[in-house]
Order: sequence, then structure tokens, then C-alpha cells
Amino acid sequence: MYPKSIQKLIDLFSKFPTIGPRTATRFVFYLKNADKKEVKELLTAIINLKKNIKICSFCFNTFEPAQISSKIEAGKGEGNLCSICSDSRRDKNLLCIVEKETDLISLEKTRKYKGLYFILGGTVSKLKKEDIDKLRTKELLERIKNPEKFGILNLKIDEAILAINPTTEGEATILYLERILKPLTCGEQSRTIKTTRLGRGLPLGAELEYADEETLGSALEGRK
Amino acid sequence: MYPKSIQKLIDLFSKFPTIGPRTATRFVFYLKNADKKEVKELLTAIINLKKNIKICSFCFNTFEPAQISSKIEAGKGEGNLCSICSDSRRDKNLLCIVEKETDLISLEKTRKYKGLYFILGGTVSKLKKEDIDKLRTKELLERIKNPEKFGILNLKIDEAILAINPTTEGEATILYLERILKPLTCGEQSRTIKTTRLGRGLPLGAELEYADEETLGSALEGRK
Amino acid sequence: MYPKSIQKLIDLFSKFPTIGPRTATRFVFYLKNADKKEVKELLTAIINLKKNIKICSFCFNTFEPAQISSKIEAGKGEGNLCSICSDSRRDKNLLCIVEKETDLISLEKTRKYKGLYFILGGTVSKLKKEDIDKLRTKELLERIKNPEKFGILNLKIDEAILAINPTTEGEATILYLERILKPLTCGEQSRTIKTTRLGRGLPLGAELEYADEETLGSALEGRK
Amino acid sequence: MYPKSIQKLIDLFSKFPTIGPRTATRFVFYLKNADKKEVKELLTAIINLKKNIKICSFCFNTFEPAQISSKIEAGKGEGNLCSICSDSRRDKNLLCIVEKETDLISLEKTRKYKGLYFILGGTVSKLKKEDIDKLRTKELLERIKNPEKFGILNLKIDEAILAINPTTEGEATILYLERILKPLTCGEQSRTIKTTRLGRGLPLGAELEYADEETLGSALEGRK
Repeated sequence: MYPKSIQKLIDLFSKFPTIGPRTATRFVFYLKNADKKEVKELLTAIINLKKNIKICSFCFNTFEPAQISSKIEAGKGEGNLCSICSDSRRDKNLLCIVEKETDLISLEKTRKYKGLYFILGGTVSKLKKEDIDKLRTKELLERIKNPEKFGILNLKIDEAILAINPTTEGEATILYLERILKPLTCGEQSRTIKTTRLGRGLPLGAELEYADEETLGSALEGRK
Repeated sequence: MYPKSIQKLIDLFSKFPTIGPRTATRFVFYLKNADKKEVKELLTAIINLKKNIKICSFCFNTFEPAQISSKIEAGKGEGNLCSICSDSRRDKNLLCIVEKETDLISLEKTRKYKGLYFILGGTVSKLKKEDIDKLRTKELLERIKNPEKFGILNLKIDEAILAINPTTEGEATILYLERILKPLTCGEQSRTIKTTRLGRGLPLGAELEYADEETLGSALEGRK
Repeated sequence: MYPKSIQKLIDLFSKFPTIGPRTATRFVFYLKNADKKEVKELLTAIINLKKNIKICSFCFNTFEPAQISSKIEAGKGEGNLCSICSDSRRDKNLLCIVEKETDLISLEKTRKYKGLYFILGGTVSKLKKEDIDKLRTKELLERIKNPEKFGILNLKIDEAILAINPTTEGEATILYLERILKPLTCGEQSRTIKTTRLGRGLPLGAELEYADEETLGSALEGRK
Repeated sequence: MYPKSIQKLIDLFSKFPTIGPRTATRFVFYLKNADKKEVKELLTAIINLKKNIKICSFCFNTFEPAQISSKIEAGKGEGNLCSICSDSRRDKNLLCIVEKETDLISLEKTRKYKGLYFILGGTVSKLKKEDIDKLRTKELLERIKNPEKFGILNLKIDEAILAINPTTEGEATILYLERILKPLTCGEQSRTIKTTRLGRGLPLGAELEYADEETLGSALEGRK
């Protein structure tokens, strides 16, 4: 019904997360009516995203090398570190394992954490081999055993914070991570890695009347 | 918090209709993880949208000239008509005035209308001069008076359907259109243009219990 | 967990339409904290509902006899008519068939209808005998054939308005009613009853962009 | 529009929490169509609620004396205790202060708390005298100073858990309670009462991406 060039773009926007054909159509007419400068800016930004953004060789976070350019010669020869991993002030005794980039950003925004991160790349609902293989567990173990190879010197992890969503899937993932991390040590003369989970309790704005029993029980036990 | 190239694109997507920063962030990571071919397809589609899509010189609908190429020599010398306006089988006694492209598409999908269209470009909440000036009322009157100048031959409008949303704003716009259209004639030896409105009543799936009185009254009066 | 007298009342309120245990609990504490006068008023109102409210012998609407007291001696000996059926100014050529009381009230609120009603008592999703038997179709036919027996004199129905929701279920019910009503006549020297349906179209506040094709098609055809 | 006895009951149900006229109307027709036995059961339950349910002289919880009948001769002469306050196994070193009955029930359901309660009767948005006067703060202080007078022997509160919603209003209330409770002692040779708050953190099913910074910060600090 729409001209070909419009329909094509509707189809492509419909693939964007949360977007259906109706909103995709609104996007297309928004761009159709936008001035040339604005559209050019969008095109440039999309091109720059693919050109400028790299993946950190240690934690798998996205970063922009121009900002940092801390190239390292070690290991695979041309690794690159994100601004967190290359920041010498970060605490190298703490490793926080998260599911995805946006979770890392959420934790950084609290300004309460000063250690390093590792982005797992997903969660698993069941501990099937094929599901677990989609997570970066092999990469995680490699980085704990040989951090220097991935650009981090003097790593000595005492505590691995499993900052995974307290959902059913997250719980399964946490259980698996605890199993593979607990027997490990990281760094010279170090002790077994202690794993911790994020504290449970009432979130800001919650009402006792609507809280589930498990959360309320945690809130009671964690009172202070 | 995000790398510059990511933040820039989040900002641009946040300007899209209905999109906030959170969904914009999801769009960026969707593109970040998409393969090169898919991103290239999107870039090409956006470029083609701006390059290929023209505005119909009569009805202001969008169209893709390559599909039709019905150039006309008349009037301003280089007008172009959309596939509806250039279709000789359409009924030239009927003109349907709509607010925007998507409304035109909705009406075409019903396959119940065979006349021409005119896209008004908006609605007004009050009949202030500055608001009315944003609508294409001057262009509408020009096209009714001299349709040939805009590429339509033998136009003789008997009825103008004011297919505007039955909202408060739409009603104000309809009242204004009735005022400027009713005294007019279009075409040789023709009578005054009759204006009509879309029928009111219960939509598919409605329940009497939740219908407003005005709608239910219309449904009673329009029973058949 | 709650005292027995509280839990009992929570259970009873939980049976109310749309109410779950949580809202039921709020109801109970609302009553617990209400003053005696208010609770007494509620008790009296519930008792009066069961004591004072009667069902109209012709249309099955609820009514309060004290207000009207138009007892009739005919037929079953002690029928009673609601305020609409006993109002001599109502048009006895029109019968509006509705699903339930609240639909009748919605239609009365429009002040556009002056005929009589008949409450069918439900709709059917399929034309199975056991479903149809739940409707008051037998009662409907009896009242059309012998209106005097149910208290209405001089009934002569020209048109039966099938004011049933334009939903899938409503459509099935309308089809069935058309089948049983069309061959009928009502009153002396009368013609076959004409059946009509409520008009379809855009409701107040609708937007063309979100209207379904069938509704928009009806709105186009019903323009005026 | 509705008969008087129906309208009266619609009006009364419309006063119930969360209920508007439309749902109230559905309630009335639900009762209209319910059988006599069911309506009688409802009437009896409402009467029993007002007749049987008492307020605990210590904690202000509702209870049904017949179940317990632990009358005490002290103080005002005819106080009565709820099943929690009269349970000798409950820990008399802990007092949990809640806003309302349903919060008490939520905490009991966790089976993680074994102390006594006190129902404050509300929260305050600002620390204005007229607002605070609506809370049972005077009653709270009386019960801490002279618990025997209200039926509790051997009370010796070490910790007062301020189990109030972590909302803006709840916070204001908590601050006020801390101010009036902290200098106090309760019981012989006892130390100053320690006040605690429910633990903050991620609730069951939460997602880091959507958690607010304060909650996520608490979850990080409270990790274990």
C-alpha cells in the first residue's frame, strides 16, 4: 500500500526491539518530514557506532578507543581495554559479573562500586549444555586464570559479585556461576574466590501490602 | 556514562516519536549487535527514503516516481502525481480530505472509496489564524479552483468527505472546512460542493454498556 | 490468618464480579472502620434490593412496584409492569431487544428511543440448542404473539431493533433473532416485523489511524 | 434512571475503596440475581463483622474474642488481647510498628518474625501536629511505658522495627518515630530502645536495568 521505499524502511524498523508496524510507520514519516541535516546526523551516528565502538578485551563492555587508546601488546597481540578496565584506581580484588551492558551502566550510576566487571552475555533458564555454551563462561574462567593475557595486571579476585537479576532465570545462572567459581583462586597466594549476591529487600517506593513473602522475609532479616 | 558514539545515537533515537532514552538505548545495542549487512540495509533504506520519495503535486501524498513517472507539462511545469491522483479510474466527483498520510492509507485499505484525496497536514484545536495557517487550506482552495494547474483534468467535485477524526480537535477542523467549502463550486456548470462527515456509530467489538451517549444515539439513529 | 468473621466476609466479597481477595480485604477493613450508621444503611439497602425490586412481566426489566403499582388482572393473574412498559406515551410499534439491564439503561440515557424493550438475558457464541435455551427467546415469541397476556395492550410491532453488542457473540445472537423474528407479525392487520441493527461507524473520540477496516468502511458508507 | 432501591445500593457500593459507579452497578445486579441463601450469608457476615470483631487493647489489631477470650482485669477494666499479644511464646524484646492491619498480616505470612506488633493507624506526609495527632503515637508511648496496663506483662523492648513502607510518606513517619523512640527505655534495667528499618534491596523478580539507583546501591551494599 505504501511506496516501496517507505514499506522497506517500515519493515526494517519493525525489527527493532519493542517496535511493531504501526510505530515503525510513524518513525518513517518522522524521518520523511525531518530536515536533511537531522537525517544526515542519524546516518553518521549509525556509521560511527559500527566504526568507532570496540569490545573490551577483558570485560566485553563496549567502548570508544579514541577516548582511551590504551593498546596493549600482550596476549592476542592487539587487545583493547575499556575505560573501567584501564582505570588503575579500580579495585582489582572485586569482580562484578553482569548479564549485559545496560546492567553494568545501572551499577556504575549508583557510584557505590569500584571494582571490575565481566559481561556474561546472557542468562540461562536451564542448565543445559547448549544454553550454557551461549554464555561467556569459558571466557570468564580464562580471564580469572590468566588476566595478564587479556590486559589486566595484578588481578587478585577475593570476591565475585553475581549481579544477576533475581528472576527464575537469573537464579539458575547464579547457581551455575557459584558452582564453577567457588573452587577457584585468582592471583598469587590468594584464597578461594568468595561469591556474593545482591541484597534482597524492599525497593524504594514499595508497599508491604503488595510485597511477596520472600522479599518481605529478606527485608526483615536484613533490617538495620 | 556510555561511549560518545553510543550516547549520540541514543540521543537521536530518543527524538523518534514515542521513544524514550531506555528504548533508544535498546535500539543502539540492537544495532551494535546486528551484522553489517543488516545495518547497511537500514542506512540504504533511510537514504532511499529521502532520495526516492516525492510529494504529490495535487494531494500531498507521498509517492515513488519510478513506480509511476506520470510527469505532466501543465501548470508549474514539473508537477508529479501519486498513483491515486494519476489513476484515470478514480472518481473525479469525490474528494476526501484527510489529516495525514496514515489516514489516507487506512481509508484505502477499506476498498470502499474510489475518489481522490487531499492531505490537510494537521488539525486545529481553535480557529486562530496562526493555527489555521499551518493547515493546507490555501492549497486546498487553489486545487479546487484550478485543478488542471496541479495536474488533474476534468475534476468536478460534487461531494467533499471531511474524513477527520471525530475528536474535539477534528470537530473544530471540520467546522472550519465546512465554512470555507460550502459556498464553493468545482468544475464547469457544477453545483455547490456538498460536504459530508464519516458516519458515527458503534465500532466492531464495542459494548453498549461502555459506549458514550452521543455514539449510542448516533447508532440508534443510523440503524438499518 | 485473619479472624474467622473477617475471613468469611473476605471470601464472600471475593465472589463479587471483578473482585479478588486483596480488594475484598480492603472492603472488609473499610466496613470494619465505617461507623454503625453507614453499615446499617448498607444492610438495609441490600435487604430492600431483594424485597422491593420486581421483574417486569413484559420486558424483564427490574423495577420498584411502589413507584408504579400498575397491577394488571390479566393472564397469570398478578403480573406487574415496569415504568417503561406501563408508560402510555411509549411507541408501541417499536421493540428494542437488548442483552441486559445495563444496556437498556445506556439506551434510555441517549433519550433517542421511545419504544418498548425486551431483555434477552444473554448472548450466544454458537447456535447450539442448549445455549439458545438460556436466552428468553420463547418468552420473546410469546410476548409478540399475545402481548395482552403480559399486560401490554395495542402492541403492533413494525420494527424490532436488535440492539446487541457488535461482537462475535452478539453477531451470532443477532443472526438467530433475525431468523426467528423475520417471518412474524405482531398485532392486527400488521405486516411482517422488520428487524434492524444499530448503526456502525466511528465512535466519539476515535482516530482513523487505529480504526479497523470494517468500522471505517461502515463510517464511509454511512457518511452524511 | 435505576429504581430507587437499586440506585441507593449503587451509591453505597460506590463508596467502597477502588469502586466506581460502573462496578457498583455490577455488584448490585450480582446481588439481584444471587439466590436468597447467598445474600443472607452476606448480611450475616457483615453483621458478625461489626458484632464479633474487637480491637486488641495493646496492638490495635482486630481479633475475634470467642477464639481467645483472654480477658484481663487490669487497667481500663475490660481490655482484650489479640491472639498474637496473648501468645506467651512471642518474643517480648521485639516490637514491630506497622501502618495497618494488612501490613501486619503480610509480615506474619513470612513466618520470619516472632515478636509483638503495634498498629500505628496511618502515615504522615509532613510532620505537622494535626497530621501526627492522627497517628497512635501517644498510645504507642503509653504502651511502652506501662505495658501491664494494657495487658502485656514482662515487656522489655530492645529493638523497635519500623516496618513502614519505604515511600516518601513512610520515610517521614519513620524519621518521626525514630525521634520519639530513641531516647526511650522499656522494662526494668533495660537499655535505650534500638530502632531498625526493613532492609532495602532488589525484590524477587526485579531487573537491574529498571531498578532505581538508591535501591541498586542498597542491594550492592547489602550483598552477601
